[in-house]
Amino acid sequence: MEMNKPLLALTALALALPTAVQSQNAPPPSDVALEFARDLTTEIGPRQAGTEAEARARIWALARLQSMGFANVRVEEYQMPTWVRGEERASIISPHPQALAITALGNSGATPASGMDGDVVGFRSLAEFEAAPDSAIRGKIVYIGHAMRRTQDGSSYGAFGPVRFSGPGRAAARGAAAIIIRSVGTDSHRNPHTGNTNFPAGVTPIPSGAISNPDADQIERMMARGAPIRLHLLLTPRNLGMQTSGNVIAEVPGADPSAGIALVACHLDSWDLGTGAIDDAAGCAVIVAAAQRVAASGQPRRTIRILLAGAEEVGVWGGRDYGARHATDNHAVAMEADFGAGRVWRVDFRLPEGAAGAANRITASLAPFSVSRGRDAATGGADVGVLAAAGLPLVDLQQDGTKYFDLHHTPDDTFDKIVPEELAQIVSAWTSTLWELANAPERLGEAE
Amino acid sequence: MEMNKPLLALTALALALPTAVQSQNAPPPSDVALEFARDLTTEIGPRQAGTEAEARARIWALARLQSMGFANVRVEEYQMPTWVRGEERASIISPHPQALAITALGNSGATPASGMDGDVVGFRSLAEFEAAPDSAIRGKIVYIGHAMRRTQDGSSYGAFGPVRFSGPGRAAARGAAAIIIRSVGTDSHRNPHTGNTNFPAGVTPIPSGAISNPDADQIERMMARGAPIRLHLLLTPRNLGMQTSGNVIAEVPGADPSAGIALVACHLDSWDLGTGAIDDAAGCAVIVAAAQRVAASGQPRRTIRILLAGAEEVGVWGGRDYGARHATDNHAVAMEADFGAGRVWRVDFRLPEGAAGAANRITASLAPFSVSRGRDAATGGADVGVLAAAGLPLVDLQQDGTKYFDLHHTPDDTFDKIVPEELAQIVSAWTSTLWELANAPERLGEAE
Repeated sequence: MEMNKPLLALTALALALPTAVQSQNAPPPSDVALEFARDLTTEIGPRQAGTEAEARARIWALARLQSMGFANVRVEEYQMPTWVRGEERASIISPHPQALAITALGNSGATPASGMDGDVVGFRSLAEFEAAPDSAIRGKIVYIGHAMRRTQDGSSYGAFGPVRFSGPGRAAARGAAAIIIRSVGTDSHRNPHTGNTNFPAGVTPIPSGAISNPDADQIERMMARGAPIRLHLLLTPRNLGMQTSGNVIAEVPGADPSAGIALVACHLDSWDLGTGAIDDAAGCAVIVAAAQRVAASGQPRRTIRILLAGAEEVGVWGGRDYGARHATDNHAVAMEADFGAGRVWRVDFRLPEGAAGAANRITASLAPFSVSRGRDAATGGADVGVLAAAGLPLVDLQQDGTKYFDLHHTPDDTFDKIVPEELAQIVSAWTSTLWELANAPERLGEAE
Repeated sequence: MEMNKPLLALTALALALPTAVQSQNAPPPSDVALEFARDLTTEIGPRQAGTEAEARARIWALARLQSMGFANVRVEEYQMPTWVRGEERASIISPHPQALAITALGNSGATPASGMDGDVVGFRSLAEFEAAPDSAIRGKIVYIGHAMRRTQDGSSYGAFGPVRFSGPGRAAARGAAAIIIRSVGTDSHRNPHTGNTNFPAGVTPIPSGAISNPDADQIERMMARGAPIRLHLLLTPRNLGMQTSGNVIAEVPGADPSAGIALVACHLDSWDLGTGAIDDAAGCAVIVAAAQRVAASGQPRRTIRILLAGAEEVGVWGGRDYGARHATDNHAVAMEADFGAGRVWRVDFRLPEGAAGAANRITASLAPFSVSRGRDAATGGADVGVLAAAGLPLVDLQQDGTKYFDLHHTPDDTFDKIVPEELAQIVSAWTSTLWELANAPERLGEAE
């Protein structure tokens, strides 16, 4: 697609001029980001990778990025295996009959169409499950709990996520008939948290679901009383085989092609239960709003490339396709926004030594937003993971994730959860940071 | 059932001696109430009126009340028409296809088994709906919103409840094909609020559902954009005809039969979506714990009668059966606990003039709990409504309902929502109040 000229003329007048001192005299935040998130979650809603909803989201994003004045707006398609949810129900047969709020995990196997009944063997942690003999697990419905708590930096996801990531595969490998886990989440609502799980090669997937935290409490109360628990379980997901997904890409062309590309990434797909507001409409809203603001202040030195990645939730297919297809592009630096809509509280760098000045200027520009400098150990995100692994310089604007795992992968991830003032703070922090990276005279990761 | 002797011997030693000065030297709260609520919501869970789950709850309650040492523990059965939920799904067909979180309202009509499609006519309030011509409504799926907000005294339920109580009946009478309403609730989670609705005599029930507040926001955003909205709706509830329900009754016999009965009521049934923790396991937990504490301090002057009413949610069948069956019993005063598990903040009286001393003593005993005296306009609750209408003296311990309608009639009404410290405050306030009412030398409502 050809570059629009005059670039961004329609929106430039209404936007602040971001500079290194922009933060000291921040104008009222634009509604660009909030409107992007609102419109994507309303006009598309859930947009699971590989489905027609994700395809509609790509068409929507193409039109929106064009209307915002970006250049080189395009889709890059790829194929990916696609799993979709079916019916899902669970209930306690005994000792205390009642329904459970359950959802299937991505890649779950299916029960028979009439469901299955099974005896529960329950564990309060993955370690307790691993310590049990296979004989206790074979043929059973395994329950695994955990003790995830809120953390500002999201570190609890790393600590307890394996219950979901690897618990089902391990249970299947050890002969379990099915598995239900305590949702990997920190809320106490009857909204179970989905998310992908993986089965080792050669291991047949078993029905694998997450129950909400109140339901997990209920199961654990019954476990504590000692009476055997018997469950009915109905999960009928299907594999659709290879389907089309794609990345949506747009650019703000830089004045100096040799200065390389500042890549900013988010993901366009969402899980199917909610409308993907904090995961990751908010991230996409932030990067497009920040890129538009930077462009509005004048053509940047570097090209800013926007990557709305497809199929992140189900295995980072978009990020991997981008990494393979653009491995030899002259990338200078990358940033990613995929941790909700909570305010930025820390900046982490992974820049070459010669770019210390840029890091210092960014740090100074962020201080008025109560953003402090971290350990200089930026890691990027999933969708820039291929480039990050290859050593590309990175800047991470760490967002407050205290409430993120209340909503993550649940039906409750909807637009009302975005706090406009917090989103505006993120956009401001991103604008300052991206302006510096796009205009820094220092060499970042571009070819010499 | 015969009175247990020695009355309450097993539990008396562990309990505080409630007196008029109990509040000044409150002992650590007992766990009786918390355990009652925990066990009812765990061992029975949802217990919709007229179903076998409610029957299990009666058996459970009989055993629990006996084990707590109460006398004359019994069930009084009655018959009532019973409606049960079926499948429930809704989705937007156009302009922006996506699923909605919906639940059927009690007494809803059914769609065909394959569902129905229809065009939406949307209104932001009941008044806006009433102002529209019938021609705009006929054959349509009506949507009605409202502007319910949190209130400490729950008054917003009175203001906006009619959207649910009478909206469906009005829509049916005016020729609508179906109706969906914004949940009558104050949360922003994807858990729709059920509850009974009523259709006027001669009006055939139409499919009637509530969508969650985030889904209502979504519908209203689409309404604001002006494109026609078309929905798919599947609700397959059924009427089971007359079924058995019942009240569970227990007593602490008083020393002076002529002093009448102090009636304390709650309801044992719940809606089917949650486990009925705040509505109304908490209320039942409070009255049994308070009655047990009063009994533990010595035989009261008046008989304390505990009424765990059946079938409150679906039309106060238990309260009405009690009122009819016990109309000539020598009731002295009534109290009811059916407003969640939030702390008591006000006491309201409706006592005869000669009992001003009792009201003053109760007021004094509650002051240390930050409970102030209200307008002396107690109204009782639904389950004592027949007696209240006949003029029986009443005392209302008003609880903080600020968060009550976040959970009311949703899947989210589960045990984790009860805050132990708040429940303990309610039990303490009830114990002081009930002790005074059970022992007051003044005449209350008993026969002269």
